[in-house]
Amino acid sequence: MSTSATAPSLALDDVLVGSVTLNQWIESIPQRHERGDQLIELSQTDLHKLVNTAGTENMGYLLDRLVPADAARVAVSLEPGVLVQVLESAAPDTAASVLRVLSAQSMTDALDRLEHEPGNGAARAQALRNIISWPKDSAGGHMTTSFWTAAATMTVAELLEAIRQQRDNSDSDNVYITGADSKLEGVVTLRDLVLADGATLVRNLITPDVPMVSPTTPAEDVVAILNASPVHEVPVVANAVIIGVVTQTDVVDIIEEEDTEDAERQGGSEPLDLPYLQASPAHLWRKRIVWLLVLFAAEMYTSNVLQSFESVLEETVALTFFIPLLIGTGGNTGTQITTSLVRAMATGEVRLRQIGRVISKEMTTAAMISVVMAAAALGRAWMLGVGQEVGIVVSLTIVAIIMWAALVASILPPLIKKLRLDPAVVSGPMITTLVDGTGLVIYFLIAKWILDLH
Amino acid sequence: MSTSATAPSLALDDVLVGSVTLNQWIESIPQRHERGDQLIELSQTDLHKLVNTAGTENMGYLLDRLVPADAARVAVSLEPGVLVQVLESAAPDTAASVLRVLSAQSMTDALDRLEHEPGNGAARAQALRNIISWPKDSAGGHMTTSFWTAAATMTVAELLEAIRQQRDNSDSDNVYITGADSKLEGVVTLRDLVLADGATLVRNLITPDVPMVSPTTPAEDVVAILNASPVHEVPVVANAVIIGVVTQTDVVDIIEEEDTEDAERQGGSEPLDLPYLQASPAHLWRKRIVWLLVLFAAEMYTSNVLQSFESVLEETVALTFFIPLLIGTGGNTGTQITTSLVRAMATGEVRLRQIGRVISKEMTTAAMISVVMAAAALGRAWMLGVGQEVGIVVSLTIVAIIMWAALVASILPPLIKKLRLDPAVVSGPMITTLVDGTGLVIYFLIAKWILDLH
Repeated sequence: MSTSATAPSLALDDVLVGSVTLNQWIESIPQRHERGDQLIELSQTDLHKLVNTAGTENMGYLLDRLVPADAARVAVSLEPGVLVQVLESAAPDTAASVLRVLSAQSMTDALDRLEHEPGNGAARAQALRNIISWPKDSAGGHMTTSFWTAAATMTVAELLEAIRQQRDNSDSDNVYITGADSKLEGVVTLRDLVLADGATLVRNLITPDVPMVSPTTPAEDVVAILNASPVHEVPVVANAVIIGVVTQTDVVDIIEEEDTEDAERQGGSEPLDLPYLQASPAHLWRKRIVWLLVLFAAEMYTSNVLQSFESVLEETVALTFFIPLLIGTGGNTGTQITTSLVRAMATGEVRLRQIGRVISKEMTTAAMISVVMAAAALGRAWMLGVGQEVGIVVSLTIVAIIMWAALVASILPPLIKKLRLDPAVVSGPMITTLVDGTGLVIYFLIAKWILDLH
Repeated sequence: MSTSATAPSLALDDVLVGSVTLNQWIESIPQRHERGDQLIELSQTDLHKLVNTAGTENMGYLLDRLVPADAARVAVSLEPGVLVQVLESAAPDTAASVLRVLSAQSMTDALDRLEHEPGNGAARAQALRNIISWPKDSAGGHMTTSFWTAAATMTVAELLEAIRQQRDNSDSDNVYITGADSKLEGVVTLRDLVLADGATLVRNLITPDVPMVSPTTPAEDVVAILNASPVHEVPVVANAVIIGVVTQTDVVDIIEEEDTEDAERQGGSEPLDLPYLQASPAHLWRKRIVWLLVLFAAEMYTSNVLQSFESVLEETVALTFFIPLLIGTGGNTGTQITTSLVRAMATGEVRLRQIGRVISKEMTTAAMISVVMAAAALGRAWMLGVGQEVGIVVSLTIVAIIMWAALVASILPPLIKKLRLDPAVVSGPMITTLVDGTGLVIYFLIAKWILDLH
């Protein structure tokens, strides 16, 4: 055994010449993305050499140890005949994510070839057709079809004999117990199995009340449901028959995907749906331009506000100096709140009925924050030498803008959720835009009042 | 078995009167946060009633099925004697997270009482002292101490007999193989064990090259290392002796914590380090005010910029109308980029040496975006009737600001990483602030040039 953190990385070139095995190279590079990058940089010739040296079975093992997008990129560079053999030895969920990125024609070809592979080919082709028939972000799209089944009427010894005879190894740490009509009756964990006596009836080891999901259950709901389960994976059933299992490894992938999507929404963009480095400028442009134009249109009315207060601005040009500072601070306050709140709603920590607590907490915090910021604003006005009255206007405005931003930022995410949309669309840029124009109105109304302008 | 998504939630009141068991209630509420909320809302009297009805062992099982922060809040309301019994039946990592929130005195008391509990108390107290001696965000702070060990010289049948005699049940899906001097020699998965013949030597089943971590390894590094491992959990070793295991369940918790921290940093705030609903206004104030003041100070120079171009503003007041629109668009462009990039760096997808690719990709995208936005800006200027020349100034400025924001937003996260800081501190508010003042300088320089002002 070795402590990965300190072991040096091996070179892929050494695998090509055969002085290091593919598995040793995999273990020497702890980051999945790093492995993918090195593989993608291989020339077509070197990739062929790698397949010849390592063998298709080890290539399947390798694809399982890449992020799905990288596995797909490496796989599409393989010759069709080789690809099929690699897909056969990769985990079903890895193979499915590779198939998803192929053209419709290549996918059909690959599945047809796989169908006619000797041994396990036909069964594997059917399993893959099943997985890819479900949406990518559903339980069906993330499940593995390699799992063990047994009957409740068996003894533990009989069950162990039965799973030893099932072809595929299992990706799951449970044995799924099915009845006469193939219906799922329960789950036995491997942990309970190894502790039981061989003569024990399997029926007596079944973990009660294990949740199940349907293949169309959204992937993010699967994560929430697993949190409730005494076992760490969830069976996917259709018509009461088990067709797959979402394992803990899949859950980690789902959480990372969901969190990436939320982060991108929070940055005021559509989710990229692609790994960042694989997104072309045209793809990035498409995902970003829509929100930029929406926000531009929403921000346009700041010009109308400024135009309508033109006489105020002409009378006291000094008011202009504070525009970016005031609306910037409002945007920052709102962004802080909305970010915490959206994340707390995404993890399930804050729910709709707690909105009252959220608003009162945020308004109290905003009041405390505004005291400090008002002092800072007064100091800043004094430094610029714009006179006491403008200083008072700026201070009062910053208090009002902070309270207003806090209200908008704490109401909007629950409101969006209430409309059954994803609260993550309430981004920092959206809050900033909303606060900019309204903040200017607040500013000029306070200015007119204090400075007695018309 | 039941499909959780459709089963109705049971009421905690029914558990109190004994018509529903605590486990049935747990299973009926899939969201861990929801369970925690209901428990925290119980009166002190009802909580005592719950302990009496359910028993301390089931209360331990319950705490394992809450988020750690909620488990801690429920636990601190228990009487010291009851608390100790509950801690004894909860998983060691749950018990440790409860102990961490107690006062130093209460923690010492609880551990002393536990030490003298009959049966397993002394061993458990020692295990807990071990876990809490490590930092909260380290491998040691997240590990469980319930795992099975066996010797490589055993047969599979002997190993199974040995683990049946180990007191604690295991939280792990592996058996850890130790040598004569207690040194960790390898790992056997339960999956391999159940497939093996009873007479097989354990030595022949060991999974080679399993990574290990030290108790001080940062929790986020553990996640990266696990991605490389053929098993799904990682042993924690000190002086080559195994002292704990970070399991996949812990990994899910670590990922969610890390992603929450990053989200909060990205919103221009310090990480809250507490569940949102449990953070008091004073706590929120502390975590937010520092960045707000830093950003305020950085934004202050926008006033100097505006003051120094006072003559330009007086000559052409119409230029003022576009200030929020122009700097707002710059901020939005920068926020989109920095959010995608920081997330891609957090998942390990983009690394420092790929910075060249990132910048060229972002500059190309920004050029494509600026064409559309320039047209939008020209249209907006025409709508406001500010004259053709101002329209040209605004259009040119938006192109320049978008390119500038893209450059700043794509260089800053890698630069911060290079300084060995967390790139997540490069938040939308930070980019917005940086682009605001510099964007104004760009604006007025273009205005002076096109409008021939002085």
